[in-house]
Amino acid sequence: MVHHRGNNLHIVATSTALLTDHYELTMLEAALRSGAAHRRAVFEVFARRLPEGRRYGIVAGTGRVLDALENFRFGPEELDFLRERRIVDESTLRWLSEYRFSGDVYGYREGDVYFPGSPILVVEGTFAEAVMLETVILSILNHDCAIASAASRMTHAAGGRPLIEMGSRRTHEMAAVASARAAYIAGFATTSNLAAGRRYGIPTAGTAAHAFTLLHDSEADAFKAQLASLGPGTTLLVDTYDVEQAVRTAVELAGHRLGAVRIDSGDLALAAGEVRRLLDALGADQTRIVVTGDLDEHSIAALAVAPVDGYGVGTSLVTGSGAPTASLVYKLVARADESGELKPVAKRSVGKPSVGGRKHAYRRFDESGTAVAEIVCAHCDVPGPSDRPLLAQLVSGGEIVGREPLADARARHARAIAELPAPALQLSRGDVAIPTTLITA
Amino acid sequence: MVHHRGNNLHIVATSTALLTDHYELTMLEAALRSGAAHRRAVFEVFARRLPEGRRYGIVAGTGRVLDALENFRFGPEELDFLRERRIVDESTLRWLSEYRFSGDVYGYREGDVYFPGSPILVVEGTFAEAVMLETVILSILNHDCAIASAASRMTHAAGGRPLIEMGSRRTHEMAAVASARAAYIAGFATTSNLAAGRRYGIPTAGTAAHAFTLLHDSEADAFKAQLASLGPGTTLLVDTYDVEQAVRTAVELAGHRLGAVRIDSGDLALAAGEVRRLLDALGADQTRIVVTGDLDEHSIAALAVAPVDGYGVGTSLVTGSGAPTASLVYKLVARADESGELKPVAKRSVGKPSVGGRKHAYRRFDESGTAVAEIVCAHCDVPGPSDRPLLAQLVSGGEIVGREPLADARARHARAIAELPAPALQLSRGDVAIPTTLITA
Repeated sequence: MVHHRGNNLHIVATSTALLTDHYELTMLEAALRSGAAHRRAVFEVFARRLPEGRRYGIVAGTGRVLDALENFRFGPEELDFLRERRIVDESTLRWLSEYRFSGDVYGYREGDVYFPGSPILVVEGTFAEAVMLETVILSILNHDCAIASAASRMTHAAGGRPLIEMGSRRTHEMAAVASARAAYIAGFATTSNLAAGRRYGIPTAGTAAHAFTLLHDSEADAFKAQLASLGPGTTLLVDTYDVEQAVRTAVELAGHRLGAVRIDSGDLALAAGEVRRLLDALGADQTRIVVTGDLDEHSIAALAVAPVDGYGVGTSLVTGSGAPTASLVYKLVARADESGELKPVAKRSVGKPSVGGRKHAYRRFDESGTAVAEIVCAHCDVPGPSDRPLLAQLVSGGEIVGREPLADARARHARAIAELPAPALQLSRGDVAIPTTLITA
Repeated sequence: MVHHRGNNLHIVATSTALLTDHYELTMLEAALRSGAAHRRAVFEVFARRLPEGRRYGIVAGTGRVLDALENFRFGPEELDFLRERRIVDESTLRWLSEYRFSGDVYGYREGDVYFPGSPILVVEGTFAEAVMLETVILSILNHDCAIASAASRMTHAAGGRPLIEMGSRRTHEMAAVASARAAYIAGFATTSNLAAGRRYGIPTAGTAAHAFTLLHDSEADAFKAQLASLGPGTTLLVDTYDVEQAVRTAVELAGHRLGAVRIDSGDLALAAGEVRRLLDALGADQTRIVVTGDLDEHSIAALAVAPVDGYGVGTSLVTGSGAPTASLVYKLVARADESGELKPVAKRSVGKPSVGGRKHAYRRFDESGTAVAEIVCAHCDVPGPSDRPLLAQLVSGGEIVGREPLADARARHARAIAELPAPALQLSRGDVAIPTTLITA
């Protein structure tokens, strides 16, 4: 167990070393025995395809990968388990007890867009030290990219109106924290998740549920209690009994300074229109309307013409809006031979085109600054005049060098989206926004 | 932070108190101020519906809920965060610093089946102490029930052939551990996830990936290395280059005692048939065939006639096979009034039938022992002669009394499935297997 500092908070991190598939350790043992374990190797994380109909993906989770890498250590508890279960032999256990990743990692930065074939993460080291990271790296990136990719579409659909991430209850309790982080990168304004607030500094939001109204003897009692505690700027939930009556009660009790009302059921467009007219008629024309209740990017887009001031999104966000995993793979693309020379390798695959070897990646722009292609090439370490390099060094000789504030990732997302050609942002099922050009020569 | 003992392993557990939505704490503060916080309350976890076309659901996660409840404590780090962010006031912080759940919890046992309206978990306490548990309870149950429900269908489809859970890389790294646990409850034989092996004692399995073959100068070198390390009983992966040649090489090197071969791509039914004939022709008639590669319950069922000895399942398992969350809700169903009398409460909902008040639940059987109905009733604390009570006490006055070994949950799953009427086990989209009868009088 090591202590590390993230966002100026002390976090007690347990080892991530067993967030690993059994076969990674049996491969390690066999490769240590054959001697091939020490061959230099390059692994690459990429998606063969995007979820059906998606036009782009968003990179998220890289920062969490760096945290996991830092805590990837086999301590006495991990080694005892492996010994008791006889998963690997004693010489492998000794090797594991001294395990520190000593290689290099390059990757796309969080918030950037990606396409099929984009080398989102490149891990270089010995086969032994790199093969063991497969599962934990893929777990993090497959989850966080899936959530961020869905969140990005919702942010665009909301057209500047703020989005609240409130899906914690619909996903695994730790996935919830990571989901809040991914959504924030992709433009969500706040999260309901307190652990995400503490761990990552994300703004948190929330006021009251139906249970709070039901707890009290009347809706007016509940509103009074909430206003006494949170002040008139709070958001009152108005659909427990009768929306119209609730709005009248709310304005009566809070006055014109009432911050917002929340509608969580029914025909949200219709209800928002009626509530807006009523609020205005009651003089509460500054009171905002927040809507929640099984929203996704399509229903958010459909509410564009409704007088809505903010959206809360839960289930569809944390389940990736139909694509809960990003289909990223971690593939050995090159390894040294006996002479030490790095040789590209690739499985014989039907319908799975891939290029062996260590690659570079650039995004190419036209004169107006619009992205036109993703260039992935094996021998092109100098970008063209209109190319932006996409791979940043994240780990150098085992040392983490690629941390950045979450705000930088969030700003990068906004920029990267703005550079895409217009059709990329259509919500309908479509083709990938820009082609990925693999150059192997 | 507290230390607790699970499966005889010391686990350092951090506080679960911030795996909570912001609004639970603002409700707490407002209710403490209004005085209603101390009213006795009953919250119930249930599903209004199953995922589309599903005929039953499987309860999983209850044991993890008990772990989370035990670690739901506001220590200095949690309180400092809430103070710095001004999420609640000082008197609420004092209340939180002494927070211990002191109420009762009843629930369905893990591995049992559930239907719409089944009160899977019932939490009784003061409003204040019970309302705060909403998010962490729902996160755990919504995830674990979704995975177990998918896993159960796969187990049935496999018809006794063993299933390996290998989806860790396709889901959040901690959701992966919980997924392995849920799948094991629902009948999976093993998992690839080492953390699940250590934390929950689940058997783990795995041998080698394509990267191991690509690392070596030839497939034969790779197989030799694996056999030297893991012995002839291992499973050799035979689809890196040419399956037929790989099988010949494998038998040549390992002899007739070769444990198994794994096929991860192509037309699995066709390939399994060809490989079976080849293995038999080579004298390796005891060598098993394991297939992997984007399997779900439907493709598993379709392989029933193929000579397959085991299945590895990844993505579809950890994403709930189309239903990544179980749609469970945590609703206030009764609370005391000023006099202390418990009163049923319910939100006015269109199309959301619910019954207020504390309930009992029984499964009713016909003379042959087949389940015929789920009885949920408010005033029926004695089961009928053919009824089995479904709610067990899990927490009594704040003390956890409902822990059980995972093996018990796994055995219960097998029994509960065997009791269902035959149509329940069809994989096609259909109606809920047995009706839920709500008796309110």
